[in-house]
Amino acid sequence: MNNMTQQKATNVVWHDGEVTRADRFNRLGQKGATLWFTGLSGSGKSTIAVALEKALHRLGKLSYRLDGDNIRLGINKNLGFSAEDRTENIRRIGEISKLYCDTGIITLNSFISPYREDRDQVRRLHEEGGYNFIEVHVDCALEEAEKRDPKGLYKKARAGEIKNFTGIDDPYEAPVNPEITLHTDQMTLEQEIDIILDYLRKHKYVILYR
Amino acid sequence: MNNMTQQKATNVVWHDGEVTRADRFNRLGQKGATLWFTGLSGSGKSTIAVALEKALHRLGKLSYRLDGDNIRLGINKNLGFSAEDRTENIRRIGEISKLYCDTGIITLNSFISPYREDRDQVRRLHEEGGYNFIEVHVDCALEEAEKRDPKGLYKKARAGEIKNFTGIDDPYEAPVNPEITLHTDQMTLEQEIDIILDYLRKHKYVILYR
Repeated sequence: MNNMTQQKATNVVWHDGEVTRADRFNRLGQKGATLWFTGLSGSGKSTIAVALEKALHRLGKLSYRLDGDNIRLGINKNLGFSAEDRTENIRRIGEISKLYCDTGIITLNSFISPYREDRDQVRRLHEEGGYNFIEVHVDCALEEAEKRDPKGLYKKARAGEIKNFTGIDDPYEAPVNPEITLHTDQMTLEQEIDIILDYLRKHKYVILYR
Repeated sequence: MNNMTQQKATNVVWHDGEVTRADRFNRLGQKGATLWFTGLSGSGKSTIAVALEKALHRLGKLSYRLDGDNIRLGINKNLGFSAEDRTENIRRIGEISKLYCDTGIITLNSFISPYREDRDQVRRLHEEGGYNFIEVHVDCALEEAEKRDPKGLYKKARAGEIKNFTGIDDPYEAPVNPEITLHTDQMTLEQEIDIILDYLRKHKYVILYR
């Protein structure tokens, strides 16, 4: 048996037994899914993601938060805030979420992601691969988000120190048919988490195997 | 209590109880780690990654393969093969591996990754964040890799149909101090997998909690 034959045969043997997506889902007792939180700055996206991560952890489910902290300082540190860069920013995050879906992890994505077309592209990416994309509109009146202004960004935008700020001098295009809408100017955090968990339970994304 | 106060208080409460990296590692019974297989085309990187994934799965450990199939067709589909694009290709993969490490997953990265500086940058990225980077030199003589030529690429490169092909008209810079070296022109696949598993066991990357 020459090396060529040996290599090919080995390849085939192992390939037949390749670990599948279903194997990984079984290992974890959950399905991979992308929860995509979109909304104005200050609408509550990150707060919800942190709370949901904790709730899922209590249920024994593994999730991972993707947000500005680990994305803009990491894989997307070579991107700015031009329209083109914003689109590329969201595209890359969408591709990462898709890899996580395939792995079996539930990602919690908190990004303003103001453009409908960008979000729809991420949705298509997921649907083409048979992955679960759950768009969560974190819907908060601009007036209320601006009143909260947790990072002081609205103040800077109003003073002209930040340009192209979503809701002030750049548009926010609300989702048309999001899977979940949370009116964060009218709900408690606990209510918001309950709504999401109910959705996940009902659609068997999370509470599947165990 | 106005909304501003409510929001801030909620934030603090949940933040205190944030799910940590250690929580995720405990949930999975393993530590996140990046296994980086570097070597010539045809050296056996993908074959080893597929077999190792299976071996880890049998041990109840969750790994995920990153390779040309899911990277070049996904997040890096807007990159070509210029020196600049190759460097950006490896940088992005490094950032994704780092996110996976933080999640608690063992990634199996199969990329020729011919440039030492690119690999060292990925190593630094990991070490700065306290992540485990394990460089595996899949060391196969060019003569043998070219004889195997599983994708027929060497033939095309020799015929001048592919330019800048590693080992033919582009350099391969071998690792200086890799964590693991596998002489794939002298070993069986089973031997190779045993060497890696022994390494992981000895360094407690994998067989940790269970």
